Amino acid sequence: MPVYTCTAAQGTLTSGSKAALAAEITRIHVAINHVPPAYVNVVFSEPPPDSVFAGGEPGAPLIINGWVRRGHPQQEATRLALELSSAAARIAGVAEDHVMVVLQDGPARSAVEGGRVLPEPGQEKEWLARQGET
Amino acid sequence: MPVYTCTAAQGTLTSGSKAALAAEITRIHVAINHVPPAYVNVVFSEPPPDSVFAGGEPGAPLIINGWVRRGHPQQEATRLALELSSAAARIAGVAEDHVMVVLQDGPARSAVEGGRVLPEPGQEKEWLARQGET
Amino acid sequence: MPVYTCTAAQGTLTSGSKAALAAEITRIHVAINHVPPAYVNVVFSEPPPDSVFAGGEPGAPLIINGWVRRGHPQQEATRLALELSSAAARIAGVAEDHVMVVLQDGPARSAVEGGRVLPEPGQEKEWLARQGET
Repeated sequence: MPVYTCTAAQGTLTSGSKAALAAEITRIHVAINHVPPAYVNVVFSEPPPDSVFAGGEPGAPLIINGWVRRGHPQQEATRLALELSSAAARIAGVAEDHVMVVLQDGPARSAVEGGRVLPEPGQEKEWLARQGET
Repeated sequence: MPVYTCTAAQGTLTSGSKAALAAEITRIHVAINHVPPAYVNVVFSEPPPDSVFAGGEPGAPLIINGWVRRGHPQQEATRLALELSSAAARIAGVAEDHVMVVLQDGPARSAVEGGRVLPEPGQEKEWLARQGET
Repeated sequence: MPVYTCTAAQGTLTSGSKAALAAEITRIHVAINHVPPAYVNVVFSEPPPDSVFAGGEPGAPLIINGWVRRGHPQQEATRLALELSSAAARIAGVAEDHVMVVLQDGPARSAVEGGRVLPEPGQEKEWLARQGET
């Protein structure tokens, strides 16, 4: 249900650190937002170094942008962002000063996965139970 | 006015299927949200296969993320997402299980196209009529 | 704190125009939203020409998508979008008809930078003052 896009200049991440970060983002999201791992999507975008700027100068941020369904308690969204930031710094070997995590929310009813409109937060069980019936 | 970003690992889409999917996304958006086709933007992002994960494992999702002006009826946003999902599966030859569509909304007044602030949903006609006067 | 992603087909922007546009986006954002330049992130995404469409046909839009903290006055978000559009056209040498700027907002408390939850708009000073203490 969520989609995470991780952006860092080419050379910041190895194939191995991308796999490890994708696995850890998935683990953290599952633990906090209660969706099965298979529904967590993670994509990496790696522009050339001349395409990434911080403060108007070539920079080396690692930016994680997640889309989540609107309606999760704010406190859990904050905890999710904090844990993702800490994990990203550790796994990518980047100073946490250069890590930014943004969670954007949108209406569950404006999203479709596997041909079905997503459930509101808290109604995942019923939704998953109906999986395969339709 | 909308911007659709379609993300799939390299090799999932051909040049032909990208063109066909862009045309169909445009057609569906125009039919439901009443804007002229020229205002529908579609971009494809195709990271290498080692950069796309589902469930923490290398995966093959096709993710369509659309930005639309806030204020359209929810029911139409849901219908838009459902039709885009079905069209994407059909045109890309991907199982709909692997297709995810997310529509994010934002204030029309926080968006500018052609140098002009976008109209609220429902006020497209007046906006388009003033096109060329300014 | 903001993240701007600029998307244009390969060949639209040079390395020099990307650097100039990043610097100008940063300058404009700092002037209107009152954050230090170091906190403004700008990333360029340049898909091949067969991956960018407007009106269902291959096209040449320059799309600037910014994430900003929710809670800035709407009037300032509108001014920010207008100034970014005008600057982008001028610096990239693209007709403003082909420039689209979208500012998406999200809760400051759903975003983390440098390991710390972002401040609400208007509380930047206190947040920056605590920088280094934690």
